[in-house]
Amino acid sequence: METIVVVKIGGNIIDDVDALKKFLIDFSKIQAPKVLIHGGGKLATQLSKQIGIEATLVDGRRITDEKTLDVVTMVYAGLINKKIVAQLQSMQCNAIGFSGADANCIQSHKRVHPTIDFGFVGDIDAVNADFFAELLDKNYTPIIAPITHDGNGQLLNTNADTMAAAMSIALSKKYKVAFYFCFEKDGLLKDVEKADSVIQHVSVPQIDILKADKIITDGMIPKVDNIANALQKGVHKVILCHAKDVLKNVNENANFGTTFTIN
Amino acid sequence: METIVVVKIGGNIIDDVDALKKFLIDFSKIQAPKVLIHGGGKLATQLSKQIGIEATLVDGRRITDEKTLDVVTMVYAGLINKKIVAQLQSMQCNAIGFSGADANCIQSHKRVHPTIDFGFVGDIDAVNADFFAELLDKNYTPIIAPITHDGNGQLLNTNADTMAAAMSIALSKKYKVAFYFCFEKDGLLKDVEKADSVIQHVSVPQIDILKADKIITDGMIPKVDNIANALQKGVHKVILCHAKDVLKNVNENANFGTTFTIN
Repeated sequence: METIVVVKIGGNIIDDVDALKKFLIDFSKIQAPKVLIHGGGKLATQLSKQIGIEATLVDGRRITDEKTLDVVTMVYAGLINKKIVAQLQSMQCNAIGFSGADANCIQSHKRVHPTIDFGFVGDIDAVNADFFAELLDKNYTPIIAPITHDGNGQLLNTNADTMAAAMSIALSKKYKVAFYFCFEKDGLLKDVEKADSVIQHVSVPQIDILKADKIITDGMIPKVDNIANALQKGVHKVILCHAKDVLKNVNENANFGTTFTIN
Repeated sequence: METIVVVKIGGNIIDDVDALKKFLIDFSKIQAPKVLIHGGGKLATQLSKQIGIEATLVDGRRITDEKTLDVVTMVYAGLINKKIVAQLQSMQCNAIGFSGADANCIQSHKRVHPTIDFGFVGDIDAVNADFFAELLDKNYTPIIAPITHDGNGQLLNTNADTMAAAMSIALSKKYKVAFYFCFEKDGLLKDVEKADSVIQHVSVPQIDILKADKIITDGMIPKVDNIANALQKGVHKVILCHAKDVLKNVNENANFGTTFTIN
């Protein structure tokens, strides 16, 4: 089975022009077939403020109303996606940008929740692995914005972490998937105060222990749950790391960040 | 040679939710392989105003500065493109949206002009016909936003009329191209005051006569020059018509609007 590299980057890279450029240079040098999923960053919030859309919170959770959906569609699928694609093209990486609506490549449904109506938020139903496999086999590099659709004409705002996990799972039916889940730290830290206390390896059974020991807490819980889910559904390995370390890990087979495996 | 339908729609359709939906229903019913190029409409201007970007004019011509480029990239390649794609997907049309940067499908250069710096405006160098042919042969329907790139990482704002003509010309190397150039009127009018005075057929040699007779004037001149250029470079026919008449022309072989041919 061929190895495919799936990378997810978030706001800490997207919001920083220089860090983004540096990352894209690295990403373009990954020799394996690759997919990039990008989050949104602060731009959408800034634009919403500028045009006077107030954030709607229900039980402390942000709601995607129609105007906010328009903003995230513009910023994620338009500005961020196309800027990344244009830069990668200049680096001899044949990038091609998508939302989930394009070619029906990622379909979702409006989130169903017993008490909260999240608005136009999508939970993923299906990733069209055949479509992406065909592109990857032709050396195209898909760049995915966290916007999906429901198949009935409605675009939906979608969590980029979940999307990256769903993409990794779908591709693992066809490839050996290494999923580089980038965030602002260097990996899972044994001591959150010590940047150099990165745990090198975590197996799925160890996750519960790390939760009990309060090493995995707060915002790390959904990230790690996403990782465990991906591994349980066939993804070969998940590397939780900083974007600056992806290239070293992939091309030099180094071990920066925390590598999660099923056992 | 297989026939391909290229359709260009502009602001009169894009700015009107109901007219757009109606058009997209029609477009989805076109049986031939098809490509849609959409312009921008008023949304970008509205958004620019909302966030306080003032239009920069040099010699009465609008300049695309960096902030304006961001806005048009968001609105054209993000909001408008993805809304069209999502709607077409719900109509069983396998739409897939692109800017010219994606897969390097339409490359341009920053406009060179002896006296005016137009800013980030692109004049098209190349349309990757092989890329589009491969998609069309697999029943995908490309939906193109009027944003291109220069291959060096720079996105560029590009005239949608010119883009549609360039697309038609590029595809005519491989297909018999019928280019439906939609605008707000029913065709080229003999008397601009009479909506029913549509000239049914115009050949390229007749264009100069119609210009001399002041039937082709003002804003019609660049449109008709675009049409003549397309025909001279191999496009089979160009139909200047209203978007509401495209489906009747294509599927029923009717003759609404003005059909331009080389002879």
